[in-house]
Amino acid sequence: MSESKDKNSECRIIVDAMGGDYAPQNIVTGAIEAYHEKEDFQLFLIGRKEEILSVIKSNQLSFDEKYIVHADQIIEMSDSPTSAIKSKPDSSIVKGAQLVRDGKADAFVSAGNTGAMMSASTLIMGRIPGVGRPTIGAEMPNVYGKCYLYDVGAGKDARPSHLFEYAVMGTIYAKEMGGITNPTVGLLSMGEEEGKGNEVSNDAFDLLKNSNLNFIGNVEGRDILTKHVDVVVCDGFVGNIILKFGESVPKLLKQLLTNTAEESFFDKLKVGISKGSLKKALKSLDYQEHGGVPLLGVNGISIIGHGSSSPKAIKNMVLKAREMHRKDLVNKIENSIKQYSKKN
Amino acid sequence: MSESKDKNSECRIIVDAMGGDYAPQNIVTGAIEAYHEKEDFQLFLIGRKEEILSVIKSNQLSFDEKYIVHADQIIEMSDSPTSAIKSKPDSSIVKGAQLVRDGKADAFVSAGNTGAMMSASTLIMGRIPGVGRPTIGAEMPNVYGKCYLYDVGAGKDARPSHLFEYAVMGTIYAKEMGGITNPTVGLLSMGEEEGKGNEVSNDAFDLLKNSNLNFIGNVEGRDILTKHVDVVVCDGFVGNIILKFGESVPKLLKQLLTNTAEESFFDKLKVGISKGSLKKALKSLDYQEHGGVPLLGVNGISIIGHGSSSPKAIKNMVLKAREMHRKDLVNKIENSIKQYSKKN
Repeated sequence: MSESKDKNSECRIIVDAMGGDYAPQNIVTGAIEAYHEKEDFQLFLIGRKEEILSVIKSNQLSFDEKYIVHADQIIEMSDSPTSAIKSKPDSSIVKGAQLVRDGKADAFVSAGNTGAMMSASTLIMGRIPGVGRPTIGAEMPNVYGKCYLYDVGAGKDARPSHLFEYAVMGTIYAKEMGGITNPTVGLLSMGEEEGKGNEVSNDAFDLLKNSNLNFIGNVEGRDILTKHVDVVVCDGFVGNIILKFGESVPKLLKQLLTNTAEESFFDKLKVGISKGSLKKALKSLDYQEHGGVPLLGVNGISIIGHGSSSPKAIKNMVLKAREMHRKDLVNKIENSIKQYSKKN
Repeated sequence: MSESKDKNSECRIIVDAMGGDYAPQNIVTGAIEAYHEKEDFQLFLIGRKEEILSVIKSNQLSFDEKYIVHADQIIEMSDSPTSAIKSKPDSSIVKGAQLVRDGKADAFVSAGNTGAMMSASTLIMGRIPGVGRPTIGAEMPNVYGKCYLYDVGAGKDARPSHLFEYAVMGTIYAKEMGGITNPTVGLLSMGEEEGKGNEVSNDAFDLLKNSNLNFIGNVEGRDILTKHVDVVVCDGFVGNIILKFGESVPKLLKQLLTNTAEESFFDKLKVGISKGSLKKALKSLDYQEHGGVPLLGVNGISIIGHGSSSPKAIKNMVLKAREMHRKDLVNKIENSIKQYSKKN
């Protein structure tokens, strides 16, 4: 591994082969597929070498053994995040984060224990100077395309300054990764008028209003899906609940359609057709399409995936890490945060 | 009007004829329809007498003029709630709430200015002893039927004791109005384990755990729609955002289906069918079906409707008020709150 941190150098992505409900199988196959699709970055697989090799062999994949980094321990999904990163120093999650910290890799991707991955990224890679709290966002489907929601679970009981940082980081992400010029930022609230928020969001309103972000004021719950707004900012507690609520909508719809189908044969037929169309339409709600979510605000690229990630989801996570490196996202966030730190 | 407050006496419901985007037309027609459907309660219409009579006449409705209570002023949708209830003492909202306070009516129904209706109900009717903050709930569709979500907007920055009260009141409502024996109560959080909430909800967890409510612990955003839970409790800021987010889902789905339809003629056909089935299935998400939402925790029945309420929604609001009176809901909440006040 090269120690260079030069952003123009080849991108080095480490993938946690042991993280996720279907590890190492889904991880190894998905990551190697991403690698062979591009071949313009360096892929490292971290975890139990023998197990990784076994997947490579049984799936007849082509991957050079020298890019496997052995890590003996595994942080399980059920492990307590903060204690696990202390008690398992030789785990794939801890070692992966250390390799980014030490400049030996640019990005770390894991579908393992989310809390451990967040803690390891924050504590080992460290926060970007000026960032009080890193953030995880979600790409929500929207009538006008998509809407980036920050924060969806990195932090709860956020302070007004945290909400402001989410807006800064979300703006950079929407611009660089979403290709949106001058993204609009809305603050999630109970009404559009100023003062319609809670104590914390009302204070964040003032910070946002006095910044040069493209702040459009308060937005409501319905606006996430239906208003032309690019970045929506909220406390991680609220964002996490909305995200999970949204993810459960297809299951409810399926049940509602099934209930409707019980009424007549013709309804049954129509509902069968509807489920097909709906499935297609709801593809944009499917996290497997998006891959994982980046933790923004840490000193390196950290992408966290769903425990049940498919090979396709893993592949998309690796490709996202690659793109974030190409767009020099970490440095851009650092510069943007620095600019506001001077002002405030 | 009789001054008796005996719960066995005939139910007296006042409807704000001037409240709502389509007032008095939708209000008067919807309320009178409810009255003629049951004829076992007394309906009063409050507002500008001439305007109410004009709607009755133009729609050829049968309604005795003596049950019209004149109120000269109107609190507009755009009026500031707290100042309006002071500056417009002769408004339908203020006078309607006073009639309940004075024991001249049992229930007040309005599709007018929501904030003013909440303030008038809380300040004029008064809170039930032991209730720190009244609450508005929503009936959410759920794979297993429905789920009552409290609070969805009566209060923000709730304290742990408020969340506990919501659980007590929501339990009574789900039991009496939803016919659910021993309703289960979940506390909305970021994860199922204890401690996965924010500061306020973690403290509320302790209060709930030590009560004899049927508390099942923390629930997540997805559980509102997909878990077998009857009452879900959260801060009004969170609940309001979820409710509005949920209401916007059909609009997004319509757009997603339209996008899908652009792909081929066959898709277009299928999508046309799907929209029909979906519309039918999504009926349970339609507030017009439910009518308005009761404000629980005040000394009387107060039902608040959507500004754009149809005659059908108004009718359902009146029928809901009638049922709440028959079930003696206000007294049952008072007794239940009293029981916990003694314990805590």
